[in-house]
Amino acid sequence: MKADIISIGDELLKGHRVNTNAPFIAKALGSIGIPVERIVTCSDDPESIRSTIVASLETADLVLVTGGLGPTKDDRTRRSVQELLGRRLTFYQDAYDRIAEFFRRRGREITDDMRDQAMVIEGSVPVPNTKGTAPGMIIDCAPRFGNRYLVLMPGVPTEMEAMMNLTVIPFFEPLAGSFIRHTPVMTMGIGESMLARRIADVEDHLPEHTTLSYLPHAAGVSLMVSTYGTAREAVERENRQVIEAIVSKAREFVYATSDASLEEVLVHLLIERGLTVAVAESCTGGLIASRLTDVPGSSACFLQGMVTYSNEAKQSLLGVSPGTLERHGAVSEHVALEMARGCLERSGADIAVATTGIAGPGGGTAEKPVGMLCLAVALRMGDGSVGADALTFSMHGDRSQNKIRFSEAALRALLERLREG
Amino acid sequence: MKADIISIGDELLKGHRVNTNAPFIAKALGSIGIPVERIVTCSDDPESIRSTIVASLETADLVLVTGGLGPTKDDRTRRSVQELLGRRLTFYQDAYDRIAEFFRRRGREITDDMRDQAMVIEGSVPVPNTKGTAPGMIIDCAPRFGNRYLVLMPGVPTEMEAMMNLTVIPFFEPLAGSFIRHTPVMTMGIGESMLARRIADVEDHLPEHTTLSYLPHAAGVSLMVSTYGTAREAVERENRQVIEAIVSKAREFVYATSDASLEEVLVHLLIERGLTVAVAESCTGGLIASRLTDVPGSSACFLQGMVTYSNEAKQSLLGVSPGTLERHGAVSEHVALEMARGCLERSGADIAVATTGIAGPGGGTAEKPVGMLCLAVALRMGDGSVGADALTFSMHGDRSQNKIRFSEAALRALLERLREG
Repeated sequence: MKADIISIGDELLKGHRVNTNAPFIAKALGSIGIPVERIVTCSDDPESIRSTIVASLETADLVLVTGGLGPTKDDRTRRSVQELLGRRLTFYQDAYDRIAEFFRRRGREITDDMRDQAMVIEGSVPVPNTKGTAPGMIIDCAPRFGNRYLVLMPGVPTEMEAMMNLTVIPFFEPLAGSFIRHTPVMTMGIGESMLARRIADVEDHLPEHTTLSYLPHAAGVSLMVSTYGTAREAVERENRQVIEAIVSKAREFVYATSDASLEEVLVHLLIERGLTVAVAESCTGGLIASRLTDVPGSSACFLQGMVTYSNEAKQSLLGVSPGTLERHGAVSEHVALEMARGCLERSGADIAVATTGIAGPGGGTAEKPVGMLCLAVALRMGDGSVGADALTFSMHGDRSQNKIRFSEAALRALLERLREG
Repeated sequence: MKADIISIGDELLKGHRVNTNAPFIAKALGSIGIPVERIVTCSDDPESIRSTIVASLETADLVLVTGGLGPTKDDRTRRSVQELLGRRLTFYQDAYDRIAEFFRRRGREITDDMRDQAMVIEGSVPVPNTKGTAPGMIIDCAPRFGNRYLVLMPGVPTEMEAMMNLTVIPFFEPLAGSFIRHTPVMTMGIGESMLARRIADVEDHLPEHTTLSYLPHAAGVSLMVSTYGTAREAVERENRQVIEAIVSKAREFVYATSDASLEEVLVHLLIERGLTVAVAESCTGGLIASRLTDVPGSSACFLQGMVTYSNEAKQSLLGVSPGTLERHGAVSEHVALEMARGCLERSGADIAVATTGIAGPGGGTAEKPVGMLCLAVALRMGDGSVGADALTFSMHGDRSQNKIRFSEAALRALLERLREG
């Protein structure tokens, strides 16, 4: 069983919106062994919707369409599919009840277009919308298109995601014949070319059913190792062997072999060790704190964060000395060290990280250019004393990339220090 | 002139990566009046690359391809196009020099695959890669495909973006015949259905060359008003008239009619008024500070942020009283007010915002469910006294959506208070 994904919407073609629905759907299908062959974005013009769906039904067993089921006037998918398959609409009471309840809970009045939203294409399996109003549909396209399924879902991500998880994936899982195992290898501190050379041996001798992709991101590169087959055990064994071979070639750069972010790995390690963390941020502006607190349960280890943009705040909140600021400048390892120590002492945390640097675009000098980061980690030692050390980095991105890379360097420094200890 | 965008990469089809390149390219083409008809993502299997490019060359005048020009082994685009057009590769000295310089600056050794990366398809216009190594190409596909252009670029966003801005857009601008004006209408505090009803009159009577799209996002909905035509002045006039009509129907919900984020509007307003801001965050965990400091130049108005996750931090950093925490709980308007006042006083800022709430998934109770947010704004008045008020919201997302919506509510509250004052 092979799938195509069709994303409908002029706003996608104009670049006003990033398509996050297609990767979500692709991942979900991958987890039940259904590979995606094409992702197509087309206009919400009815003729374009029809011709794109027809083209996909010619080669794909399963075509998933998002967009065009909501309450506003530029929604046209349902009508296009109705005409394409020559079917009528029928009223779906359960959807109507959900829609009425949805608006009631939000204290909004019930509008005329509500009944229309509760209509589904006849002969379809309605897909309840637990996060919004318009229901989705799973349509067996016979006789017009034999052995083909069409799934219609709204374009709003939360609504589509709930439909995929609760109805669409459970529906197609028994129909999918193969098994896929994807394992990410998350690395830090190494670029794509360097990593490729490190693991060239493994890549040159990949087993037949395994592929390897590089996923460069703002702060480094990750790998995805994918193994296909029909026997679950053989697939998992082959996949695990490749992962072990890669890790053995690049051990010091690998921080996880699961779909975990650096902050997730870090928060879980802190909680496992019963340690608390605090952060003092200048150039990262709260991003480190925000990333740590993105992790559910982070309140068990995250005590506090201080975003000290001004020199005054560095002094009053962290106890950085005016003399150090004067002598070395705000962007210096000396200031980073005092920030980290001050943060550790004032918060009572077990480990603290501090950042001071120049995210850009302004503020750079010949001596301290845009992209420069001074970073310090302070750690409470077994004997009650405080150990601290500092590092300087130089990044080459724009402001938002630099903020991400700075925060990545800080999280990485925390993780490395914890692994040593 | 009409364009297709082709994104190549198994990692996109597997959902391991979100396609941010296509919207960037679409926006850039839109700015010079070239509409995008389709965005197709295909596998990096050479046969799939060839058939997808051929299909697009049949209907589109211009086909832009990203992916498959980097240093690693899964890169196959250049070879596929070479075979498709029956052309050889030629050595491009300028690219080689840039590649050698790129590695030299980063202190890395020069590798064997470097010379290969400097090869371009004969007869193409090489596109310098100012952010990386492999050059792009603009290829006139005659005689095999007459009047068709093919543009090949790497998949790494920063490299592709620089190529579009510096070479590709300037190359195609003189060849594009029409003019497009897109104007966003950014709203806050109103849902899609409500907004649609508010502006139904305008939407029902849109002029012939103007379209309207809804762009729902985590914290609300925005509109995009697009006007097409050949005469720049007429296009701009028609677009402006529609914008004015929409704003007149929904004035209190519109915060910008440009592509500005809420934080950009806020930072610029603060700087314009000569005011400073500080933030005290519990449930938003640093996200408000991070968003404000994402804006270049924000150091002129942003003094400091405090992320007080624990009750101890709320007391020691913001002076929240233990009695208030005890009586009303950490998630309460009373605590939010004390946080905002404490933040204002201790930072010396002119305006401060504080958040305390339950982002989830854990921590909710019947009385204080997940998604509850208490928010307070404190403001220094003309007479030196401090005014403060609080609000309670209830959101319906997962942890990360709630964090975004909470931060949006806080930025919006700051903006509303400043507009009143």
